Amino acid sequence: MNEELEMLYEKLTAFYEERKFADLRMLLLDMEPTDIAEFMEENLDDKDQIRFFRLLPKELASDVFVEIDSDTQEHLIKAFSDTELKAVIDDMFLDDTVDIIEEMPANVVKRILASSTPENRKQLNELLEYPDDSAGSIMTTEFVALSANMTVAQAFDKIRRTGINSETIYTCYVTDGKKHLIGVATVKKLLLSQMTDIIRDVMDDAPISVETLEDKEDVAMKLSKYDFLALPVVDKEGCIVGIVTVDDAVDVLQEEATEDIQKMAAILPTEKPYLKQSVWNIWKARIPWLLLLMVSATFTSMILSSYENKLAAISVALYAFVPMLMDTAGNAGGQSSVTVIRALALNEIEFKDIFRIIWKELRVAILLALTVAVVCFVKIMFIDRIYNENITTGIAAIVSGVLFITIVMAKFVGCILPLIAKKCKLDPAVVASPFITTIVDALSLIIYCSVAISLLGQL
Amino acid sequence: MNEELEMLYEKLTAFYEERKFADLRMLLLDMEPTDIAEFMEENLDDKDQIRFFRLLPKELASDVFVEIDSDTQEHLIKAFSDTELKAVIDDMFLDDTVDIIEEMPANVVKRILASSTPENRKQLNELLEYPDDSAGSIMTTEFVALSANMTVAQAFDKIRRTGINSETIYTCYVTDGKKHLIGVATVKKLLLSQMTDIIRDVMDDAPISVETLEDKEDVAMKLSKYDFLALPVVDKEGCIVGIVTVDDAVDVLQEEATEDIQKMAAILPTEKPYLKQSVWNIWKARIPWLLLLMVSATFTSMILSSYENKLAAISVALYAFVPMLMDTAGNAGGQSSVTVIRALALNEIEFKDIFRIIWKELRVAILLALTVAVVCFVKIMFIDRIYNENITTGIAAIVSGVLFITIVMAKFVGCILPLIAKKCKLDPAVVASPFITTIVDALSLIIYCSVAISLLGQL
Repeated sequence: MNEELEMLYEKLTAFYEERKFADLRMLLLDMEPTDIAEFMEENLDDKDQIRFFRLLPKELASDVFVEIDSDTQEHLIKAFSDTELKAVIDDMFLDDTVDIIEEMPANVVKRILASSTPENRKQLNELLEYPDDSAGSIMTTEFVALSANMTVAQAFDKIRRTGINSETIYTCYVTDGKKHLIGVATVKKLLLSQMTDIIRDVMDDAPISVETLEDKEDVAMKLSKYDFLALPVVDKEGCIVGIVTVDDAVDVLQEEATEDIQKMAAILPTEKPYLKQSVWNIWKARIPWLLLLMVSATFTSMILSSYENKLAAISVALYAFVPMLMDTAGNAGGQSSVTVIRALALNEIEFKDIFRIIWKELRVAILLALTVAVVCFVKIMFIDRIYNENITTGIAAIVSGVLFITIVMAKFVGCILPLIAKKCKLDPAVVASPFITTIVDALSLIIYCSVAISLLGQL
Repeated sequence: MNEELEMLYEKLTAFYEERKFADLRMLLLDMEPTDIAEFMEENLDDKDQIRFFRLLPKELASDVFVEIDSDTQEHLIKAFSDTELKAVIDDMFLDDTVDIIEEMPANVVKRILASSTPENRKQLNELLEYPDDSAGSIMTTEFVALSANMTVAQAFDKIRRTGINSETIYTCYVTDGKKHLIGVATVKKLLLSQMTDIIRDVMDDAPISVETLEDKEDVAMKLSKYDFLALPVVDKEGCIVGIVTVDDAVDVLQEEATEDIQKMAAILPTEKPYLKQSVWNIWKARIPWLLLLMVSATFTSMILSSYENKLAAISVALYAFVPMLMDTAGNAGGQSSVTVIRALALNEIEFKDIFRIIWKELRVAILLALTVAVVCFVKIMFIDRIYNENITTGIAAIVSGVLFITIVMAKFVGCILPLIAKKCKLDPAVVASPFITTIVDALSLIIYCSVAISLLGQL
């Protein structure tokens, strides 16, 4: 946190504790809602949070409420009178209300819906029906709609009238009598036009839109690709039902990156910030993969057991390189899989690129494997032999040779598994990343044991 | 790619090949620049790219050029006449020109600078001097500046006059005679005000700004936190020198997430899309960590070697569980480190939260370790003993017990290493993630070998 903000928080605390409420309000009016929310969460206890919230200037209350974390929101709603709740809810954008409702227990949801106007309640219920990961779930129904016959002057009048209740006014949507989306006009375009121009002539008449059920990640990527401030959402008939704004798209992109990172680290994705998650929930997110991977390591145990007597008969020193071989293969495979998974997420590659990718990865793999194998051979001969005299040149050669094979194999598995997962409509990050280690471990061990036994066993 | 776009591309190809250039231009006028760029990259060879580019409607040329990948840009610039280059450069925003210059070889940079107006050349040189990861490097100097004494009507006149050359007009910056940033006025606010209102009275007079040298990731996070469309960048004297817009901030956030993912997977971060990277560059990004981790696995070899004779004397079956122990510990540690690294990147936690984090992770660790250890014991007794009769109940108990200890230890190491790295101003993702496996592997092996020898060696 920066110093400026810290000073502001200290002032707030001082004014609040000295009950200088007029000064407090003056200060709050100049602050950003999200900073006020942060102050409340970090510096006030439950009781003071509700007292402080009641001191907020009326025009700020809803904006601050939206930024507060859901536990505090729930606790505030429970303390609100019906009138207070109605005031907060009325001033909120519908998509924010939806976000809040989704986190609340049933009895609180009931109170929120009861506090909404009948018109809003109807729209809220519609919005709540969209699947969790769809465009519909992140859109808002409050936007500026224009008709094609308006003049620019009339358009500005409409913007002035409806603007205060719209999440963005900078992109306006032009519809025909049946709400079909027929064009887009930005305020920039309008400002640079004559007041007497007709909207039909200044609008962009090939608007890019998304459908209500489209994946919200695709929607966010599209918005970012075209550098738009908002994207219209249409239903199957091509009627505009809402818009997705860039601030919500940024949140989606950040969430999706977090989820991909979690999946790659064998954690079930969670949306809550770390410190807000209960120990129990963290356990639930981590235990499935930890158990699954532990149990699937049965393969490596089986492989080692089946070669046990033969390996030990040749040289117990062979065991010393098992961790190094497995870790290096795992790292090599991980590099490839993570690169491919991220490139898929960013739409840089598609399944049809599979042969280009394999060809590129194979050349990289051979170069990498060669470098690592040579260094490994030198290291074994000059370092490992110091502390373990049982290591022969033969063992060094076999370990380095097997390392070469396993790196190439790991890179190959690492690059094709995510692509195959994508093709099968599975999540590349989930299917591929934690599995790669298990597959690569098992394959490396089989190669190592069989090569060592067949080459050294005959000596 | 969606079908609509594919159809558009087919039409473009048809018009181009049949030399129906009027139809082609009509179609292009309705398309987004980024889609035209994608079409050129994917469907045209070098020669056709330059011919096609010359067919572009004049008003689209710069917008398309900015979206093309840097290899193609370079090749186009080399084919341009000086007049063509000047036309493209003149229409570009300065921050886009900077992005292009940074990717070009010296002789191309010279031509670009020579084609710029003297005023732009001066500003370009200033922008190019900002460090690569600073706010200055991603800002643009083209914005709308207002003075506090203007009326709203005068402000709109100014916006109309300078708007076409500004990257955004929706947030205007109010400065005094010496360019000090004293306020912010959004077009929304202006539209909802009276034309005769004075800017001083309608502006927000506590604008949030960043400094030129601030980390671009922090700038992007700030923009996203406050849901702004742009952030002003000021120098040390508080004079506004540029703005960062939300589209550039989104790109920064996506890049940073990609870099963190790469670092966690032991890859040196790269900015280029995967398919654009040469085999050689991919090798360079991957070999350092692969080698370092391979060499650092010397520790595990040393540990196994030093316990070699004693372990083998007790039971070779003990070796069968080494991979499982190490993988599980690595997975457990990875879960914690990745969680902490991402939470740090999202500003959800700070170093001062270290004790809360350790306390939370320890409780989670004990729950997880208990579950996994119990399942592991049952698995060994009922599955592993089928294929390996040398596994005794004692071995099963020791493996499960050691598993418990290593999971708790791995979680502890996993959560504190990134925090310590952050405190030492090192990059948590680089320092912590690839190292965790090595540290955790070594520790688990030592615990496993010493516990097994001290408990079973005496039987």
